[in-house]
Amino acid sequence: MSDGDIVQDRAASGAAEGGGIMRFPAEAVLRLESGARVHGLEVAYKTYGQLNADKSNAVLICHALTGDQHVASPHPTTGKPGWWDKMVGPGLPLDPARYFIICSNVIGGCMGSTGPASTNPATGKTYGLAFPVITIADMVRAQVMLVEALGVERLFAAVGGSMGGMQVLQWAADYPEKLFAAVCIAAAPRHSAQNIAFHEVGRQAIMADPDWRGGDYAETGVRPEKGLAVARMAAHITYLSEPALQRKFGRELQRDGLSWGFDADFQVESYLRHQGAAFVDRFDANSYLYITRALDYFDLAAAHGGVLAQAFRRAREVRFCVFSFTSDWLYPTEESRAIVRALNAAGARTSFVEIETDKGHDAFFLEEPVLREALRGFLDSAAQARGLT
Amino acid sequence: MSDGDIVQDRAASGAAEGGGIMRFPAEAVLRLESGARVHGLEVAYKTYGQLNADKSNAVLICHALTGDQHVASPHPTTGKPGWWDKMVGPGLPLDPARYFIICSNVIGGCMGSTGPASTNPATGKTYGLAFPVITIADMVRAQVMLVEALGVERLFAAVGGSMGGMQVLQWAADYPEKLFAAVCIAAAPRHSAQNIAFHEVGRQAIMADPDWRGGDYAETGVRPEKGLAVARMAAHITYLSEPALQRKFGRELQRDGLSWGFDADFQVESYLRHQGAAFVDRFDANSYLYITRALDYFDLAAAHGGVLAQAFRRAREVRFCVFSFTSDWLYPTEESRAIVRALNAAGARTSFVEIETDKGHDAFFLEEPVLREALRGFLDSAAQARGLT
Repeated sequence: MSDGDIVQDRAASGAAEGGGIMRFPAEAVLRLESGARVHGLEVAYKTYGQLNADKSNAVLICHALTGDQHVASPHPTTGKPGWWDKMVGPGLPLDPARYFIICSNVIGGCMGSTGPASTNPATGKTYGLAFPVITIADMVRAQVMLVEALGVERLFAAVGGSMGGMQVLQWAADYPEKLFAAVCIAAAPRHSAQNIAFHEVGRQAIMADPDWRGGDYAETGVRPEKGLAVARMAAHITYLSEPALQRKFGRELQRDGLSWGFDADFQVESYLRHQGAAFVDRFDANSYLYITRALDYFDLAAAHGGVLAQAFRRAREVRFCVFSFTSDWLYPTEESRAIVRALNAAGARTSFVEIETDKGHDAFFLEEPVLREALRGFLDSAAQARGLT
Repeated sequence: MSDGDIVQDRAASGAAEGGGIMRFPAEAVLRLESGARVHGLEVAYKTYGQLNADKSNAVLICHALTGDQHVASPHPTTGKPGWWDKMVGPGLPLDPARYFIICSNVIGGCMGSTGPASTNPATGKTYGLAFPVITIADMVRAQVMLVEALGVERLFAAVGGSMGGMQVLQWAADYPEKLFAAVCIAAAPRHSAQNIAFHEVGRQAIMADPDWRGGDYAETGVRPEKGLAVARMAAHITYLSEPALQRKFGRELQRDGLSWGFDADFQVESYLRHQGAAFVDRFDANSYLYITRALDYFDLAAAHGGVLAQAFRRAREVRFCVFSFTSDWLYPTEESRAIVRALNAAGARTSFVEIETDKGHDAFFLEEPVLREALRGFLDSAAQARGLT
């Protein structure tokens, strides 16, 4: 494999920051759950901190649906701070001075890893819908390839929220020997009917946009931005709790009075429109289709005879910490409880923290001191057990 | 006014069924809350049963967002049974043998009442977005004109669920002297930020459809069906509870295995697609914009100094019954409680029934024996007080 694109530099913090695109040779085939194969896999990633001599301090952070590898450094398109800069950085629970932190763009994504916007080596054209459908397990398999290529045989921890939490669970099911600890935040062991329904609305919004062109928009110079924006708006509602929306916006108006028309009268309308418009600048519509599909297909118990505990039967030695938020209606606390029950039934070491907040699913990304301190406590304790200083 | 279109016939039940389109003369102007005026108002309506000699047995049923006047008779487009045939009919709580039941299409609607698909008398062309924005109060004002034209000075009751319930509350606020009883089911005294957010997603889906053409699609022969279908799909999720969706569909597949593509794999996807596709056959996209806007603008307290009880200060003599459903997350029980508190504060006669069900908002339309029997009890008691036999 080649790491010709890997750049190493110093972040403002002084901690080593690295990353680039890991290009695997054509013969290092990624076999997908569907039976399809990906040749010439590329995985875009970032690293923070340095691998210690024991190679025992590596932490993999798994990102959510619309996340990417830029966990603690500015987004190259938007210039905004890293999506988890409240948790990753000097003095924070995931401190690059202590850990070698890896975050990679999932396959199917649009920030450099192989996905529907990549060139299909078989045709020389952009994949579009010719890209095979992927699953959470496929994302994890690509991460295993990356982590091994970076010289790490066993992670100190895999950490993730939302879809990232699902990847963590999949790691625990498929590669428990490669994990010392696992942190799963605001996730679920399978997508519910309502979860699937919201994603289907988003996909239909994209596919209804004539600029989508059956997925073959890459060469047209036009992208299905309107459809993707509507998909984002619908999804965004599910990320916030009703009380948080009410507290943040209520029925506050944009201007002094009603427009008596269809402009954004209410601040919540303007906010949603902004969310939609900003999203299309940084995300690819086909990637949105593929990643939502992967989420909908996710059902960890299904591959284990329908018994979730069976998925964790080899993960007894992994130290788990599961977090949920009381006001998360996308993946409600009850889903985390199901994970915890299964982990306990499998005999795994399990901590569970339900955090009282009205911020909804997105509490994960927001300033949430209880989450930060509980995660710090869990990681510190695990690090001690692992002999990390 | 002319009632040339009114047809009288006998339904299978033997009860008189009537209705048609009430055309008001051009000089009978409907003044809207926005300040705009509608000339040549038309109101499409249905009646069941006969007005008694005292004219004391009239019941107005107010329909919900996508409802219409066909409350207990087959829909002319779909051929499906009336939308509330579980509540209106022989032996049911709203029995045409006892009551003169009126149901009219709201203004802004698309089943015959004046709305964006009507001809603008000023231009001779279809209104489209030239139709003025309407409110719940405007819908009620048109209903008052209809009811009076039918010879009814005072209703025995106004009854409605969801947006229909909001119209009932508006009747109580604006025309309490014209009401003996009022039934408000699964409604809210104002639209919340989350309610507005979902509607905005729907509107953006419609307006993103190039076939919408700024609202001027009437003469093109093509309608924004894809956008409207997406709007319906998003809204439909809010009508069902998460447990109901899970019970009804769970992760059940359409076929034996996954398609590994973007066809409808899960039954819930297929169900939603069907809901979207069926909706566009019977509903107009511009009407959807106008009626959702009316709902978003609804805030009954706002016109009364922000104090909801003030809205009901003249409705002390009206007998109210308020119903809510425990699993309704569109207009949660707490919203009904706010209505009940305000009614009590205003000194109105108020009953409140919270119905334990997992069917969500749509429990209103579904087989829900507790609702049926409680409504029967309330109406029977009120009818006795009104001297109806």
